[in-house]
Order: sequence, then C-alpha cells, then structure tokens
Amino acid sequence: MKLYGSLTSPFVRTVRIAAIELGLDREVELTMTVVRPTQPNRDYGVAVNPLRRVPALETDEGDVIIDSRVIVEFLNNRANGSLIPRDFDARISCLNRHAIVSGATEALVSAMYETKLRPEERRWKDWAEDQIDKAEAAFVWAESNIADFSAAFDLSAIALVALIDYAGFRFAHIPWLKRLPSVAAFAADANKRPSVRDTAPRE
Amino acid sequence: MKLYGSLTSPFVRTVRIAAIELGLDREVELTMTVVRPTQPNRDYGVAVNPLRRVPALETDEGDVIIDSRVIVEFLNNRANGSLIPRDFDARISCLNRHAIVSGATEALVSAMYETKLRPEERRWKDWAEDQIDKAEAAFVWAESNIADFSAAFDLSAIALVALIDYAGFRFAHIPWLKRLPSVAAFAADANKRPSVRDTAPRE
Repeated sequence: MKLYGSLTSPFVRTVRIAAIELGLDREVELTMTVVRPTQPNRDYGVAVNPLRRVPALETDEGDVIIDSRVIVEFLNNRANGSLIPRDFDARISCLNRHAIVSGATEALVSAMYETKLRPEERRWKDWAEDQIDKAEAAFVWAESNIADFSAAFDLSAIALVALIDYAGFRFAHIPWLKRLPSVAAFAADANKRPSVRDTAPRE
Repeated sequence: MKLYGSLTSPFVRTVRIAAIELGLDREVELTMTVVRPTQPNRDYGVAVNPLRRVPALETDEGDVIIDSRVIVEFLNNRANGSLIPRDFDARISCLNRHAIVSGATEALVSAMYETKLRPEERRWKDWAEDQIDKAEAAFVWAESNIADFSAAFDLSAIALVALIDYAGFRFAHIPWLKRLPSVAAFAADANKRPSVRDTAPRE
C-alpha cells in the first residue's frame, strides 16, 4: 500500500504510528507528497485526493482512502488490531477523544499557516491566537481526562502524542505542558515506543 | 439530549438530518450556540467543547460527544439505524466518501471566513480561491461517484446534501452544479425529504 504524506504532518504521523503498532509498516510505503495551500498540486488532486490533502492511502487494489481516522480504522481491521475498541461505548468514547485532539491539531495547523505561510501583511493576530487558545484548552481537557488516554495506546492516544509533538515542533516558544504534569508524563511514556520515536516530525 | 448548534452550520445540519431520518428528532433538542472565531465563547468552551465548535451533543447522562460524524454514529447505534453500513467494506467506503465531502465543506467554511469574517485588509485572495477550488474538485469527484451516494441515504449522502446547500447559501454567485447533472439530480431528489427541507440553512 502507498501512503501519500510528509514527515511533518501530524495526521500522516498518526497513520504511520498506527501502521507500526499494527505490524503493517512494511506493507505501508510512505510516498513523499507536497501539498501546500495556494500552490495546488493538480496531479495529486486528480489522481489521488481531490482535496489535495495528506494523508491518503492507496490500497493494493487501487482504492484510495483519505482522512487519518478512516485510514487507521481500515488498517486496524486489516491487522485485526485494537486501536479502535470494538465495544460500542468504548468506541464512541475513543472516537470522541480523538475528535477533540484532532480538532486541536487542525487548530494548530491553521495557526501555523497564519503565522508562517501567509504573506506578512495579510496575517491576522487574533486568528492565530484564537486557534492556539483552542489547542491550549484541548490540552487542559486532556489533562483532566488523561486516564482515558493512558488506558490503552489506541487511536486517541496516538493522536494525542502527534498533537503534543506537533505543538512543540511548530510552536517551540510556547511552554505547552508546563502546568500539565499528567499530559507531560503521558508524552514521556509514549516516546519510549519505537513507533513514536521513529516518526518524530522533522523538516 | 441537547444538540449545541446553529441554523447555518453544515455540520450541525448533518446531525439534524440524521436525527430526523432516525426518528430521534424529538429527543434531540437544538440549543442555539454562537461560536465565532476570534470571539471566544468561554462558557461554552469550559462547559461543553474545549474547541468551541458546533455541533456538540450532550446526552441525557451528561456526556458530551463532538464531531458530526461521531455524533451520527452514536445516534445511529441508539436508533439501530443504517446511516453507517455494518458491513466493513461498505462502511469504509461510506466513511471515505464522507471524509471527502466533509473536507470540502471545511474548505468552504474556511473560504467563508476568509471572504466575510476577516478584516478586509487581511484577506488573502489566493487562500479563498484555493479552498473554493478544492470544493469544486470534490464536487467533480462526487459527479463521478454519484451512484455510491445515491444507493442509500446514508451519512455520506446526508453530508453531500449539506455541502451542496451550504455552497449555494454562502457562495450563491458560483454556479456549483452547472456542469454536474448527476449531483444536481441527487440534490433535487434529496430535497424531497422533509429532513432535508426542514433544515435548510438560514440566518
């Protein structure tokens, strides 16, 4: 299978960590793909994903699956894994945690575009601050709910470590975890896993 | 149950259509909630959703579930519905269609913020055009895949009608469906449903 992605995207990383955890990393080949807002990669848009986003997974049958959560669900089923619980209540709880963490990650990507990619004179400080504020609120929420993230290294936990490291990678000047000892301990623990260490974001 | 939302959000509408289709609309009470980027609704952020986004569903047990897709999955299970297929391959296919449609909707929301909410001197035409281009590509993709959307009025079909109507509502000057006869026929057909008609976006 081909995974279209980059070494910086936290959503691609979620899929890469999941693939390693599921023992599928040899079957999932990362294909470096540049997608940059306002610079349409038309070939990719036509052949793979009309939204011109990563990650996208092309299966051996030639089907394309987009969205990190859908891709992880697909891989998890293929490997008969437990990254998404089978029990319905546990499943909704995991997907809900994932939605909050993933929304915080989207907020940081938006803040990154605002502060780094947009022409300087068109930047809007209020927008970037609002997005960062949302991510901070999600971290505070995670601190209160860390037991649920720590119970199993599932989709929500993978997305949380991807968020934490992305926050540090793109906004290194913000002391994200300073008042969040439980999230910091979670991150330290997660970073002992080869799947997490070997996929750390880099340019 | 309380559904935090608005009459304009296409993601809230997806949940409202789903609730009606599932016969749960009397149990899901819409609670009008204002969320506006750069104007943090802190009460809502603390009490309900740290991301300060709608929709969010508060269950009768006091649990909060966010993200239209997770909420629909929760409601679908509660009503023993068929908005998300049980068969795994059909399920992934539905979730993948939903991801593309939902991503296009996010692109249009971003374009709307760029062209209407952002201070004029900070607007970036290239950004808005790129987002609209992504949505147009998703519509072209939907035209080629319309049979899958028309086979059942599932989560992906609901999200597609929400996208089509949102595009017309926010960007009325763009002839979205002009060269897409199958998507136009799908929209006309979907609009015969009370669930769709009764939830049309309005200010």
